[in-house]
Amino acid sequence: MTDKKLAITMGDPAGVGPEVCLMLLQEVKSLPSVNLIIYGDHTILERVASATGLPLPSRSMVRHIPSLPDAGAVAPGEVSSDCGKAAYDFLITAIDAALANEIDGLVTAPLNKEALRAAGIHFPGHTEILSARTKSDRTCMLQYSREVTATFVTCHCGYAEVPRLLTRERLREVIDLTNEAIGRIKKRPPKLVVLGLNPHAGEHGLFGASEEELIILPEVEAAKARGIDICGPIPPDTAFIPGLRQSTDAFVCMYHDQGHIPLKALAFDSAVNVTLGLPIVRTSVDHGTAFNIAWTGAANPGSILAATRLAVDLCCDTPGHSPVCFV
Amino acid sequence: MTDKKLAITMGDPAGVGPEVCLMLLQEVKSLPSVNLIIYGDHTILERVASATGLPLPSRSMVRHIPSLPDAGAVAPGEVSSDCGKAAYDFLITAIDAALANEIDGLVTAPLNKEALRAAGIHFPGHTEILSARTKSDRTCMLQYSREVTATFVTCHCGYAEVPRLLTRERLREVIDLTNEAIGRIKKRPPKLVVLGLNPHAGEHGLFGASEEELIILPEVEAAKARGIDICGPIPPDTAFIPGLRQSTDAFVCMYHDQGHIPLKALAFDSAVNVTLGLPIVRTSVDHGTAFNIAWTGAANPGSILAATRLAVDLCCDTPGHSPVCFV
Repeated sequence: MTDKKLAITMGDPAGVGPEVCLMLLQEVKSLPSVNLIIYGDHTILERVASATGLPLPSRSMVRHIPSLPDAGAVAPGEVSSDCGKAAYDFLITAIDAALANEIDGLVTAPLNKEALRAAGIHFPGHTEILSARTKSDRTCMLQYSREVTATFVTCHCGYAEVPRLLTRERLREVIDLTNEAIGRIKKRPPKLVVLGLNPHAGEHGLFGASEEELIILPEVEAAKARGIDICGPIPPDTAFIPGLRQSTDAFVCMYHDQGHIPLKALAFDSAVNVTLGLPIVRTSVDHGTAFNIAWTGAANPGSILAATRLAVDLCCDTPGHSPVCFV
Repeated sequence: MTDKKLAITMGDPAGVGPEVCLMLLQEVKSLPSVNLIIYGDHTILERVASATGLPLPSRSMVRHIPSLPDAGAVAPGEVSSDCGKAAYDFLITAIDAALANEIDGLVTAPLNKEALRAAGIHFPGHTEILSARTKSDRTCMLQYSREVTATFVTCHCGYAEVPRLLTRERLREVIDLTNEAIGRIKKRPPKLVVLGLNPHAGEHGLFGASEEELIILPEVEAAKARGIDICGPIPPDTAFIPGLRQSTDAFVCMYHDQGHIPLKALAFDSAVNVTLGLPIVRTSVDHGTAFNIAWTGAANPGSILAATRLAVDLCCDTPGHSPVCFV
């Protein structure tokens, strides 16, 4: 097996992205089977290394992308259009490198959405940028952790928009993407659980507009008929009790907080965000830019380490491959 | 201090209510400062004691309410209108006894909503029956546990109805009820956290209809001005991370699953449901009738024990009272 190359995008230069990249390189520098390359700004890495006392990687481990007009002027923890634009450019360069097969996958440090917006870039997050750049119209978010793994039928939208976006077609797409990806990670057919939308999964029509009966149940039955090991819709609040968590490989969630609340409660700092349905491998930290602690060295590298480990696993899915463990 | 009398309502006779009542009496029979009286059907208790091997309490510990036309015909795990009606009658009798000061409070075992509906009783749950019978129009649900405590601005309604029900007036009511009740339990001013409605608490208008800016933030500011120790709105998914959980006495949640998902994930079988804003003390288990295991003795009494302990604490809130611990 030849060495795998993974791009690590630095994210917003004013956030905790640069320091978690530095921490990651420290952890993995001795790994034989994977080469990590930071896609970002070298001057920012120098400044963050100096501010935090973390070692600066060699030039060969950094792909410098000259987007920032004045890297010396970037202030940690401040929203700026220059940083929003630079973070976007780092990401686009890495996506294009993956599409050109120059790299095997990418791991992304956090963007700041306000900075993106200040730069005139109107995407709500990574997933949408990746979908657009790779021309993928059938993607969904996977959040992966040892404790809970979840995929999302709807995600970055307002609470009130969810019922309109919850369609049979979209649910079918997410069930299939989940089944394929978790099977690839686990190397066996996975066990999936689909949640309801309403409290108590609607309790047979008592709460809600029967979304469970009209949309969710028919798609669960159809997925069973396609040979998928799946059950639901189950009451959202009982989905994450210990016994059910242990016997479930992934939960298909109807909206962002239905899955993100238990993920952060149970697997804070260790969950990994994966975009399913792309032609490239992409994993991400599950935290934000944490501007309040940026450049102090206080950030926890648990999530970027887990994201990198999972990206390696997803790149190396040939039979007989032993997953790399470096934490 | 004279002995406190607590009614324990048996809930739906075909569910796990009767057996958790029997288990509770076993645990607390030696307690000096509290008398527990089961409000239910004596024949059902005899049958469940016989089926599970649990000891039958003396007649003096049971208030027999002759609602069931044929207690010998009740089948465990089956929805029936007779059981729905009987569970309702047990509850109403206990509420009336509390209003007449014959008892100091009530602890409720689970109702089955389908059985209630089959009996022509159209309340979604205990809270609504209690509010109606005690003529209380300003109530909310509190879920109390060691790990997480939450109150609910909206609760038993469909997912899509929440944005319409989330008003400044309702939020103010729930903040005040929460502050009063948690202060009474903790015997000090509590620290409250209010959650947003949208993913990332709307991220400054990026997701949703600015419910955070228009409704939640102004009421948090107004509560601060009334002297309440409160903050928010915070992103719902980061509310329940370990550090924030430990420093928060109660989370004010916008909808049912926002609080019930972390409660069941973190405090399964030990959370207690309290109705705030009633003229009487009332606590409840946080589980359902669990028809699939009814009358087998497999039910876990952790929640009814915790509910009884909290009811005793809420009844005995005079200064100098030592909370009773009997688990």
